[in-house]
Amino acid sequence: MTFDLYTILYIIAIIAEAMTAALLAGKLEMDLVGVFLLGWVTALGGGSIRDVLLNHYPLSWVRHPSYSLITGFAALATIVVARHMHKLRKLFLFLDAIGLVVFTVIGCQIAIVGHLSLICVVISGMITGCMGGVLRDILCNDVPLLFRSELYGTVSVSTAIVFLLCSHYIDNKNIELIIAMIFGITFRLLSIRYNWTLPRFTYRS
Amino acid sequence: MTFDLYTILYIIAIIAEAMTAALLAGKLEMDLVGVFLLGWVTALGGGSIRDVLLNHYPLSWVRHPSYSLITGFAALATIVVARHMHKLRKLFLFLDAIGLVVFTVIGCQIAIVGHLSLICVVISGMITGCMGGVLRDILCNDVPLLFRSELYGTVSVSTAIVFLLCSHYIDNKNIELIIAMIFGITFRLLSIRYNWTLPRFTYRS
Amino acid sequence: MTFDLYTILYIIAIIAEAMTAALLAGKLEMDLVGVFLLGWVTALGGGSIRDVLLNHYPLSWVRHPSYSLITGFAALATIVVARHMHKLRKLFLFLDAIGLVVFTVIGCQIAIVGHLSLICVVISGMITGCMGGVLRDILCNDVPLLFRSELYGTVSVSTAIVFLLCSHYIDNKNIELIIAMIFGITFRLLSIRYNWTLPRFTYRS
Repeated sequence: MTFDLYTILYIIAIIAEAMTAALLAGKLEMDLVGVFLLGWVTALGGGSIRDVLLNHYPLSWVRHPSYSLITGFAALATIVVARHMHKLRKLFLFLDAIGLVVFTVIGCQIAIVGHLSLICVVISGMITGCMGGVLRDILCNDVPLLFRSELYGTVSVSTAIVFLLCSHYIDNKNIELIIAMIFGITFRLLSIRYNWTLPRFTYRS
Repeated sequence: MTFDLYTILYIIAIIAEAMTAALLAGKLEMDLVGVFLLGWVTALGGGSIRDVLLNHYPLSWVRHPSYSLITGFAALATIVVARHMHKLRKLFLFLDAIGLVVFTVIGCQIAIVGHLSLICVVISGMITGCMGGVLRDILCNDVPLLFRSELYGTVSVSTAIVFLLCSHYIDNKNIELIIAMIFGITFRLLSIRYNWTLPRFTYRS
Repeated sequence: MTFDLYTILYIIAIIAEAMTAALLAGKLEMDLVGVFLLGWVTALGGGSIRDVLLNHYPLSWVRHPSYSLITGFAALATIVVARHMHKLRKLFLFLDAIGLVVFTVIGCQIAIVGHLSLICVVISGMITGCMGGVLRDILCNDVPLLFRSELYGTVSVSTAIVFLLCSHYIDNKNIELIIAMIFGITFRLLSIRYNWTLPRFTYRS
């Protein structure tokens, strides 16, 4: 049951990430292979970096080849859906928030199972939640969004901390997950709605 | 004997990749260390990413230190040869096609030996064939060619599939390799000659 | 005692790297999370890439969670110190040189302990010394400094070779380290002071 809820949310998350990446590929007028690959890297890249750094083999897409197919189809399906996208914009922001939060929680969970320190649990959550988007932005030759704005990183860190607290005090994996998700998604959507930002550091040499 | 043919082609491939990278370094007016490093990363980076993702240690350049020397010398030799390059342009496109195809086949082969799923065999081939060039383009601060044009990725995917079919129906490693190579190199050279492109996905938000 | 000297210098090095990265983040007007993350990646990224490539687990920041806190605090402290930075510019160049040289030597040391070939020892030193800065520049969407100028790579390579020679002829870890450091830091500071550069390779197709 725990497994099921996690897996369902994970699959929603990789679809959401692949689709947002495909839209960005469309803005850059990439060809079909580019759309496919950018979706794949964005959806599966964050988890892959985490697993490589934590020596956690085999990677999820090696163990479950279907994940590669799912992200590929989601990216290509986006091409068909794209013309209706402006109507779906809110659904999309919601899916993207689910992606960020679910990836973060899964990253934390894997580090907890591996008995890592609390700091590494949070880092593992952030890497899983944010690094796919960082790879996407690097491949599109942009300063990653994570470093610039939108509280992406802040939402990920605080979701990781909330999940860590929950997993300490609550003994039910699903309830932990749901509390962290409600927190993270609410935080993310509020930050978009009200344009929350962190203070910037400006330095001129 | 199989080993020999693979090794000879692999060495031709890393030389070709290091030389094309060095030419790009020359366009960006990099210094000698930059030329050397860009050649090294381009030639050995794709295989390194594959081995890290598939937990396939030690990496080839750790096991065979001579590969690092070969790519380094090839990159630096390019500086001497560069003035005659326009005469050699066709040779170069041919060597580059060999690089793409040989890397792809080697990546497939390693995944097959590791008993990975068919999808992962194709992905392993693509990563090996294309990721060196992606790293090169990222380091040169460019949107990777792979995502933009030239059927680079398409040639790699279809070569991987042809090789996979061959390795299923044929029982001789050298013949499999040669068929996949003839297919891949022909496809690549035709795509350059006739400017084949995939449809692009254009999206304006 | 050897352990102590290495560890003290390593901590100075990660602080120095995190601070230089934070200054760059300030130039790009990143927000607080961006400053923190760029510092973390720059300070710990080079060693992480080396450990992943050499299959040397667990990574240092997994084994020593305090390293993540140190780099984070160093990056954020830079925001406070930044206004006095122009007075501290020389101290900073000195710390940065320590970072480059210490990282290089530690990378060599790890490869020597792992019984790698001489070439791989030098490569391991370079990766450790330079890759943090390369990741920093990629994330800031710039052609990495390493490929462009400043003898960064040259200092790293030659420090690695000096250290390798010392470790062959001298039997005291601290003395090896100190000789390589004096060489590397002197080379680096002289190259900045006198604007030394390597010849560039210019190619027009």
